[in-house]
Amino acid sequence: MSGTDRTLSRSRTCGNAPIVVLVDPQLGENIGTAARAMLNCGLERLRLVRPRDGWPSEKAVTASAGALERMPPPEIFDDLPPALADLHAVYATTARPRELVKPVLTARAAAAQIRDRQARSEQAGILFGAERMGLTNDDIACAQAIISVPLNPGFSSLNLAQSVLLVAHEWWNAAHAAPDESRLPTGDSRPATQGELEELMVRLETELDGHHFFRNPDMRPTMVRNIRSLFTRALPTEQEIRTFHGIVTALTGGKGPPRTPRTPGQRD
Amino acid sequence: MSGTDRTLSRSRTCGNAPIVVLVDPQLGENIGTAARAMLNCGLERLRLVRPRDGWPSEKAVTASAGALERMPPPEIFDDLPPALADLHAVYATTARPRELVKPVLTARAAAAQIRDRQARSEQAGILFGAERMGLTNDDIACAQAIISVPLNPGFSSLNLAQSVLLVAHEWWNAAHAAPDESRLPTGDSRPATQGELEELMVRLETELDGHHFFRNPDMRPTMVRNIRSLFTRALPTEQEIRTFHGIVTALTGGKGPPRTPRTPGQRD
Repeated sequence: MSGTDRTLSRSRTCGNAPIVVLVDPQLGENIGTAARAMLNCGLERLRLVRPRDGWPSEKAVTASAGALERMPPPEIFDDLPPALADLHAVYATTARPRELVKPVLTARAAAAQIRDRQARSEQAGILFGAERMGLTNDDIACAQAIISVPLNPGFSSLNLAQSVLLVAHEWWNAAHAAPDESRLPTGDSRPATQGELEELMVRLETELDGHHFFRNPDMRPTMVRNIRSLFTRALPTEQEIRTFHGIVTALTGGKGPPRTPRTPGQRD
Repeated sequence: MSGTDRTLSRSRTCGNAPIVVLVDPQLGENIGTAARAMLNCGLERLRLVRPRDGWPSEKAVTASAGALERMPPPEIFDDLPPALADLHAVYATTARPRELVKPVLTARAAAAQIRDRQARSEQAGILFGAERMGLTNDDIACAQAIISVPLNPGFSSLNLAQSVLLVAHEWWNAAHAAPDESRLPTGDSRPATQGELEELMVRLETELDGHHFFRNPDMRPTMVRNIRSLFTRALPTEQEIRTFHGIVTALTGGKGPPRTPRTPGQRD
């Protein structure tokens, strides 16, 4: 039980991220894979209520792929109420509908609530039941709300770690995903300017004219637009523009690009 | 290969949900757990490129917990390009940043794009790499975009099934979760009416007055408001209101509720 004290003292310093409470977990392996899923999503505090195969567990440590060694030691409890005593809000995860009048949230909605509670310095806990049967109705009665992860109703059985992952990942996403849902990394190069793209386009059109690419003059404007459209849609980098200048140079027999975007022949 | 034809004919009838492509998967168990995660989220079409331990795989079937038996048989390919030939858009999942100029989406943003493509009858595929190394840069070059699942940067290693689950679940959520993020099921009972709640509140206040609960008359309005507030916030059912009437009756020595919400003693 000395580990418990270390956990508590460390937890004070690492904020009030939700605590994961596994009730009656059976296999050590499943505790380990659940811990791995927690740490994948930035959750570090784990409580175990009546772990069937005892604790500590070598199998859990192995299955956690290093996660348990980086987390504070799990706190062990003989009963659920003491495991919840210091929490301000408890969320119970269930796969099956229950005969209980209690708000049912998606994991995403629960994650938003938990983030709000954290901002008010409230400590939330998330309960997960045993591998086969899940939480009992008595367990769930201790919770303010139910988290029901939406899944294919024809095939909804998840293992423990998968359940933990889906719920924990919504919590992680609630803080981290929104600001940057889509981005285009360009490595060492920077995005090309419109001017650089224009220069390439003008050069390309000039070369295409010189090589009689546009056989039907009526179609020229449409074809030019389509070529430009492809390049603009691709959001090229400055490096890629230079690469394409090189391609044009190579295909046209080695002449470099003109110094200005004007058509060749003008003023020199 | 007869299974391939059956797959294709069935796939035509089951819509254009994204196809999951596992490139160079190693252990049969991981293919099975990936299939389980797919079916959890309503995805049924699986393609395997160069499965190391061959196909079919008993270990995969066992690990899939029934999923592979309910899905069309996976299609097997010797190389990646033919596995992608009929797709309109390919998304590559990666854990590590790559030296490629390609849009990077969260799984959620990719799910929204894929749903849009489905609405236009386009077929998307999602690539997952081998257990340890993930996809090669050559594999990724075949994709229009990268899906990067946001995770704890200090501990981001996911197993194959966990990766499939997170990405597939965003696709499932994109169609199923939004309309109903929070609800309060009330089982056989219906939510109480405001009138039923009011009747209980009036009765309770009367009993509390009769039992000299409100010692400081100045505080009575505040205390009454707080009691009401707790009951209204709880959104009680009609059954729960009746239960509380029973509680008041029991605590006050067995007198039933008055017939009207008026104070007892009036008119009888």
